[in-house]
Amino acid sequence: VYVEFRHERIAKNEMICRSQAFYQFMNQRRTLRFFSTDPVPIEVIQNCVLTAGTAPSGAHCQPWTFVIVKDKIIKTQLREVIENEERVNYDHRMNSDWIKDLGPLMGTLHVENEIVKPYIEEAPYIIIVLKQQYGLKNGKRIAHYYPMESVCIATGILLTAIHNANLVSLVSTPMGAENAIRSLCNRPDNERVLFFMPVGYPADNATVPYRNDEYLRKSIEDILYIV
Amino acid sequence: VYVEFRHERIAKNEMICRSQAFYQFMNQRRTLRFFSTDPVPIEVIQNCVLTAGTAPSGAHCQPWTFVIVKDKIIKTQLREVIENEERVNYDHRMNSDWIKDLGPLMGTLHVENEIVKPYIEEAPYIIIVLKQQYGLKNGKRIAHYYPMESVCIATGILLTAIHNANLVSLVSTPMGAENAIRSLCNRPDNERVLFFMPVGYPADNATVPYRNDEYLRKSIEDILYIV
Ligand SMILES: Cc1cc2nc3c(=O)[nH]c(=O)nc-3n(C[C@H](O)[C@H](O)[C@H](O)COP(=O)(O)O)c2cc1C
Ligand SMILES: Cc1cc2nc3c(=O)[nH]c(=O)nc-3n(C[C@H](O)[C@H](O)[C@H](O)COP(=O)(O)O)c2cc1C
Repeated sequence: VYVEFRHERIAKNEMICRSQAFYQFMNQRRTLRFFSTDPVPIEVIQNCVLTAGTAPSGAHCQPWTFVIVKDKIIKTQLREVIENEERVNYDHRMNSDWIKDLGPLMGTLHVENEIVKPYIEEAPYIIIVLKQQYGLKNGKRIAHYYPMESVCIATGILLTAIHNANLVSLVSTPMGAENAIRSLCNRPDNERVLFFMPVGYPADNATVPYRNDEYLRKSIEDILYIV
Repeated sequence: VYVEFRHERIAKNEMICRSQAFYQFMNQRRTLRFFSTDPVPIEVIQNCVLTAGTAPSGAHCQPWTFVIVKDKIIKTQLREVIENEERVNYDHRMNSDWIKDLGPLMGTLHVENEIVKPYIEEAPYIIIVLKQQYGLKNGKRIAHYYPMESVCIATGILLTAIHNANLVSLVSTPMGAENAIRSLCNRPDNERVLFFMPVGYPADNATVPYRNDEYLRKSIEDILYIV
């Protein structure tokens, strides 16, 4: 069954203004690695997750699960497992180019090559983004189409919602710790942890990598072609 | 070099309102498969692509390329190659479950199993989203980290920007036609076509699949867990 789609056009000039203003607003988003411990109303995070859930998905399978971690003890356990795995990543899983490419991003976080992620305990919430490789309905498997693409698109919308709510976040990929995180969140094994996202206010005096010419966002000539 | 991150807090009540309003706004987005041929200012699309380019990316590699197709002849060629491959998809590449799962979504587009995608020629623009598997700088390869995740996150932001600009779009995955599309867009072979997105106004009398209980977006209880 199909229904008519209602749409009201706005003036072309307004479209241009809106799109320009939204670009400028989104261009202020930065990844933060220093979070304040100040509390944030959980309704805000819930609304951001609901917004992520409006994403399109392959065959409308909506293959996403979000876990909000607010429990202090679980956050401490998450920090432990992620820091331990990150040491293995630096020592064994990542090659030297990769480590070099990350250097300018980590700021004052990794002092003398020591891996510390205090933000995991400091941020009021961690959003864990999980991909459902297949679905489960009354114990039966349901095929999911393009789950990776769909969940990452939803994550882009989630980030936008967080920025719109005046909060900051870090998208991180907790390599090696995915299964341990999934267990700590009590999620079934048709799900895979994709992203680990602390969310909250930036810490007082939080810093971000300075963007000189080399690190600035790419210009439109470098990313857009018209044919 | 690191710089202080400036952030001004807003009242908690305002955070709740903003996040709620944004959810309601985004929840109105639908995938359209019927487009008007009415022209749209290209600046709007350019601003949306610029917005996508503010996405975070693994090690800040920004592994995305966007092509806006506005040329009528190229659109006709794209339609031909995509429709032909889609016939192969339905006949050989997709299993019967997949085809069944897609049925309710296609609306009145596929009449008597004939595959027709007139929107490819009707939409004023097609945005092609490409993933750079690795980068190229002065002929040298640059490693890209998490390119799939990064480009899909950027696509989520792109969709949000398009919706914010009062336009509609379709995210589609042109299975089997990726290389032909890349050639028609004249892009190098470190890039892979991920999405094919017509953008514009909905056609007069455009329809979308009606969402009864079974097809509604999942509720918050089905996607969000708090620990
Ligand atoms: C990764 C991905 C691939 C998709 N591929 C196609 C496609 O090839 N053809 C199509 O008509 N729709 C495609 N869609 C659109 C989905 O069918 C649509 O998002 C879903 O039915 C939900 O509808 P909504 O976006 O209106 O909420 C795709 C969506 C995503 C996210
Ligand atoms: C897929 C993906 C994985 C990332 N993984 C990590 C990570 O594991 N640790 C981290 O500190 N930052 C991570 N980031 C954040 C990027 O380093 C950051 O987005 C990039 O440096 C650009 O900075 P900006 O977001 O401030 O523009 C990741 C980002 C993406 C999109």
